[in-house]
Amino acid sequence: MSRLKAALLQMHVTENKERDLAKAARFIQEAAAQGADLVVLPEMFCCPFSNACFRPHSEQPGGPAYQMLCTAAKEHGIYLVGGSIPEQDGEHVYNTSYVFDRTGRQIAKHRKMHLFDIEVEGGQQYKESDAITAGSSVTVFDTEFGKMGLMVCYDIRFPELCRLMALDGAQVIIVPAAFNLTTGPAHWELTFRARALDDQVYMLGAAPARDYGAPYHSYGHSIITAPWGNVVAQLDEQEGILFGELDLEQVAKVRRELPLLRHRRTDVYTLGTR
Amino acid sequence: MSRLKAALLQMHVTENKERDLAKAARFIQEAAAQGADLVVLPEMFCCPFSNACFRPHSEQPGGPAYQMLCTAAKEHGIYLVGGSIPEQDGEHVYNTSYVFDRTGRQIAKHRKMHLFDIEVEGGQQYKESDAITAGSSVTVFDTEFGKMGLMVCYDIRFPELCRLMALDGAQVIIVPAAFNLTTGPAHWELTFRARALDDQVYMLGAAPARDYGAPYHSYGHSIITAPWGNVVAQLDEQEGILFGELDLEQVAKVRRELPLLRHRRTDVYTLGTR
Repeated sequence: MSRLKAALLQMHVTENKERDLAKAARFIQEAAAQGADLVVLPEMFCCPFSNACFRPHSEQPGGPAYQMLCTAAKEHGIYLVGGSIPEQDGEHVYNTSYVFDRTGRQIAKHRKMHLFDIEVEGGQQYKESDAITAGSSVTVFDTEFGKMGLMVCYDIRFPELCRLMALDGAQVIIVPAAFNLTTGPAHWELTFRARALDDQVYMLGAAPARDYGAPYHSYGHSIITAPWGNVVAQLDEQEGILFGELDLEQVAKVRRELPLLRHRRTDVYTLGTR
Repeated sequence: MSRLKAALLQMHVTENKERDLAKAARFIQEAAAQGADLVVLPEMFCCPFSNACFRPHSEQPGGPAYQMLCTAAKEHGIYLVGGSIPEQDGEHVYNTSYVFDRTGRQIAKHRKMHLFDIEVEGGQQYKESDAITAGSSVTVFDTEFGKMGLMVCYDIRFPELCRLMALDGAQVIIVPAAFNLTTGPAHWELTFRARALDDQVYMLGAAPARDYGAPYHSYGHSIITAPWGNVVAQLDEQEGILFGELDLEQVAKVRRELPLLRHRRTDVYTLGTR
């Protein structure tokens, strides 16, 4: 199985979690009806991106968002990456992405590992770590299409993480994300292209649609980039579904022609997990 | 000293080493006359990029190319990165870049660490390792403007290397290089922008001008990129000098606003040298 159809769901997010979940379910159904094997929701797809909202909208594993995702994956027989939701675990709230297989079984869970604390003069200012606790695991999972990596938004800024996933066998790396109107135009496409090129993987970035009435203005521009560093497909800022065909033979071909992973000088430098 | 003027010399390279050295000397003089603090020559600036040419054009430290560089740096009172030349060391030939300070003293030497062995279907095919031996050192050096890193061409493909340099304090990374007409249009600007962004440094790439009569067709496009990931200046494929002002305050500002280096999860992953 070297080809798969991916669908990235660029949704608006409101303050009404129930309504967002119902909308996400409709989007998932639409993507599945059009033949998607792998469906990806955006970061915080049923919670406004605001420190004030994370705890009130959080849930434990098995909560309403979790249940909707699990049921939808099984009902449509798809791999489903549930964007991310605020996950409650005791006193802590994590920015967590769950993955379900075609039978609705949870096969991965990633807690955002790098938290977005930024202070650009005249631009974006935000401190995610005031409300979210960071995870500490590198998350790779198996599918019928091979290994895939999973990260959340700001995690993509750190080349070490994608590299570790590629070295662990990932051929596709999935990134529910929500860049803003400062970093989005400057860095979104550049970073998705560069990681795809350097690690010779497909990169999938699913973002919320832009809503100027929301507390956080998402850049949108959900994107798929290929192992040669090119953009396969990209949306604008509007709500919609981005479909893309991933051909894993392309991963093998690029790695054969330009063997970057093999050419690493592991006798000089070392990268690993603790 | 937080500002410096850099000059990247995009020269044609011929089979006549003596003529190329004389031309390089004129280019250096011109750049110095226009106030450059730091002058960078391209990869293999006095030797055709061909496995057949490296050994015949090679020299030991102190040879004619070395002498020209040393003399020019001192005469013009500039920092001079001597692109690269084939360096002979016993049986081995390295692709080596020398750096001289304003007094003509050699302050760094980098032997290309990753060799360019590539086989793109219908595109570029080349095996540098048939003729060149790889170096094994990460090269960072001090200047009156702070620390700078030095690599040669294909070395830039490996994010580990730029990262190690940034962690070691480099604020500017210099890359004499010669991408070709397959990888150049696809990857040159992307990679220089991405490394600058990820490691929050200025990246300087100096390439030979394009000559369709030469054995290797250089992409040219000598480039300077800034820590926010933007292009400061870039040439086309023609011979010329690329000037750029580097403001190291910008490095500090970007690192303060978007503290990527500080946000690395060194409790989860480790990158180091052996």
